[in-house]
Amino acid sequence: MTRSASPSAPPPALSCPGFRFAGIRAGIKSKDGLDLGLIACDAADGASAAAVFTRNRVAAAPVLLSRQVIRAGRKVRGVVVNSGNANACTGPTGLADARAMQAAAARALGVRPGEILVASTGVIGKPLPMPEVSAGITLAAADLSPTGFARFAEAIMTTDRRPKTARREVTLGGRTATLLGTTKGAGMIAPNMATTLTFVTADVALPTPTLRRAVALAVAPTFNALAVDGDTSTNDTLAVLCAPAEPRTRMLGVRDARAFTAALTDLLGDLARQLMTDGEGVHHVVTVEVTGAPSAAAAHKVAHRIATSPLVKTAIAGGDPNWGRVLCAVGNAGVAVRPERLALWLDAVEVARAGRAAPGFDEAAAAAVMAQPSYRLRVDLGLGRASTRFLACDLSHRYVEINADYRT
Amino acid sequence: MTRSASPSAPPPALSCPGFRFAGIRAGIKSKDGLDLGLIACDAADGASAAAVFTRNRVAAAPVLLSRQVIRAGRKVRGVVVNSGNANACTGPTGLADARAMQAAAARALGVRPGEILVASTGVIGKPLPMPEVSAGITLAAADLSPTGFARFAEAIMTTDRRPKTARREVTLGGRTATLLGTTKGAGMIAPNMATTLTFVTADVALPTPTLRRAVALAVAPTFNALAVDGDTSTNDTLAVLCAPAEPRTRMLGVRDARAFTAALTDLLGDLARQLMTDGEGVHHVVTVEVTGAPSAAAAHKVAHRIATSPLVKTAIAGGDPNWGRVLCAVGNAGVAVRPERLALWLDAVEVARAGRAAPGFDEAAAAAVMAQPSYRLRVDLGLGRASTRFLACDLSHRYVEINADYRT
Repeated sequence: MTRSASPSAPPPALSCPGFRFAGIRAGIKSKDGLDLGLIACDAADGASAAAVFTRNRVAAAPVLLSRQVIRAGRKVRGVVVNSGNANACTGPTGLADARAMQAAAARALGVRPGEILVASTGVIGKPLPMPEVSAGITLAAADLSPTGFARFAEAIMTTDRRPKTARREVTLGGRTATLLGTTKGAGMIAPNMATTLTFVTADVALPTPTLRRAVALAVAPTFNALAVDGDTSTNDTLAVLCAPAEPRTRMLGVRDARAFTAALTDLLGDLARQLMTDGEGVHHVVTVEVTGAPSAAAAHKVAHRIATSPLVKTAIAGGDPNWGRVLCAVGNAGVAVRPERLALWLDAVEVARAGRAAPGFDEAAAAAVMAQPSYRLRVDLGLGRASTRFLACDLSHRYVEINADYRT
Repeated sequence: MTRSASPSAPPPALSCPGFRFAGIRAGIKSKDGLDLGLIACDAADGASAAAVFTRNRVAAAPVLLSRQVIRAGRKVRGVVVNSGNANACTGPTGLADARAMQAAAARALGVRPGEILVASTGVIGKPLPMPEVSAGITLAAADLSPTGFARFAEAIMTTDRRPKTARREVTLGGRTATLLGTTKGAGMIAPNMATTLTFVTADVALPTPTLRRAVALAVAPTFNALAVDGDTSTNDTLAVLCAPAEPRTRMLGVRDARAFTAALTDLLGDLARQLMTDGEGVHHVVTVEVTGAPSAAAAHKVAHRIATSPLVKTAIAGGDPNWGRVLCAVGNAGVAVRPERLALWLDAVEVARAGRAAPGFDEAAAAAVMAQPSYRLRVDLGLGRASTRFLACDLSHRYVEINADYRT
């Protein structure tokens, strides 16, 4: 059960019992702003942790390191993150730097290096400025506080226009548990530099294998159903840490694990939508829904294709109900569709039926739907009962501007 | 052996013995301009023909029809093409219209409908204006002439800025043969509406199976090695017609078939490059070369990924030697690369070595390379001996502008 604060109540503090947070300026970013974040888990046993990482073969040094921590199934006691430099394509020096960052955070928290997750985001191919990073970690450790989450969320930003956070309270095992999360990544058509980092803490007791399953289930319809177009970053990391604030909190049972999974999915969905809305040059967030598919995999392929087609994306940018482009994208999805069964809606406006313009198709009504900041685009394949949903956005002038001029 | 005209000679007439051409205004396009083209083969036996079509599952009516003609292995006596309307996503009416177009052209040329190839390009989802199309075909047939090729090339254009033609003379079987070709398609990042049409005639005698092999070989490194990013049109068609102007020209032997294939590849390469250069909002045409690959398929995957990455394309647009994006794209190609072996050059400038910045990397020199209208980007995977080449281009403001505002 998820509780929402009543509209008149003050916003709940961004805190999660059992965890402390910091965000400081270390001087890694060339521009002003916080650029180093730290999370510390206060539970004596540390936190159970699960994470998903980029599938890019050219993974950054911090990803290689954090993957080891997660694969070992160890309890995690802290997370250190910097923005401004991705520590990617930096060779053996980069790996040594990531280890040094991990060791510095471990020293500052009084734990072992293998209990620290490391993440970086920013420019590729430049060595980390280690003096700034080390001094920043010491500074951040001194600044750790239960209410430091807002600053942590700010410290992981790159070209994001605003920090993105979400919090849920949910009754689990007879007590109220808190889930607290943040995400960054301003390039949602193709993540810009090109990283999405997401961190979630929860004050629950959950065995690592159960947490892993929960994360896999929660990521599928949220962060894995965004139109990130495959330009997967070298640094993408999404990590969830669970530790009870009270030492003797009992482990969650099966039913509660399911409730936790639902709350985590809800929270990640919230963060994913914030990510899209804050995307580079994004003016329209479109929920692409594919129904009537022969299988879930086919539905996913079609939705992904629509959501990443430059022609569809520019039509979304222009607010042009050029529905032929959507059907063209469907035809390119590698799924054996039957053109004469395809149907298309924009919100409630029927656009195409039986593979051609719907009788009485009202182009002005369709254009009105597309003028909205968010709307639904539904394609029915007429082939089965599987369906899926995907978040897509426009390909705008501003996207090109940001990405053509990123470094200069 | 390919002969080039000397620089001082007047340009050779755009003609091909044994074929006549026409391009007229039928009134299909809303804007001014020619919009209906016709090719007639004068050989008594007709022309042997081979073609490649879109792999899009939502193929347009003319594609369905022309595919039948080609699959039947019939001799072809004519080609009819309209621009301004793609006759795609038009249901059974669209198929009937395409058949009517085929029949009208057959009547005008005094041949059977099954001997006519049909192609269309333009707006999707609107019925063809059949009165204009029919009257236009009659008009075009009356206008057929050996020197009508330039007007034919103009009649197949949509948002193209200029007609694109190429001609080769080559000695085959002891006589000089002519190859004459044209292409259209202004959207090369993702073909705009979204069609590439290409037609080639040659005054040679070649059995259909031999011609088919030649076309397959010639298309692979040319029209199939462009960064069309997979937004394959509903209408893409590339057709080659061969018929000797002299009735008793003997069939080409194996050696001459090879020379024909080379000349066809050369001609298609020329047209492909013109297509890229005239692409929507294109300012830079980049030859992406992948070397050191474990297999040709792996090389192709990596080259395709680099050439279609929005982040690489925007970096090309901005002239920004942000080489990390190229390595990031390599990592996303689905090929088991070894990051520590990756090397990157821009023309002669070494940019990255062993997966990181090359020693003494000169960013200003790299930026100077990227300021050129065309240059070479080479990635070495360090894994084998296979290689490939691909044509890529930038993703510019102008591309978004054209495609966001295409219909309005």
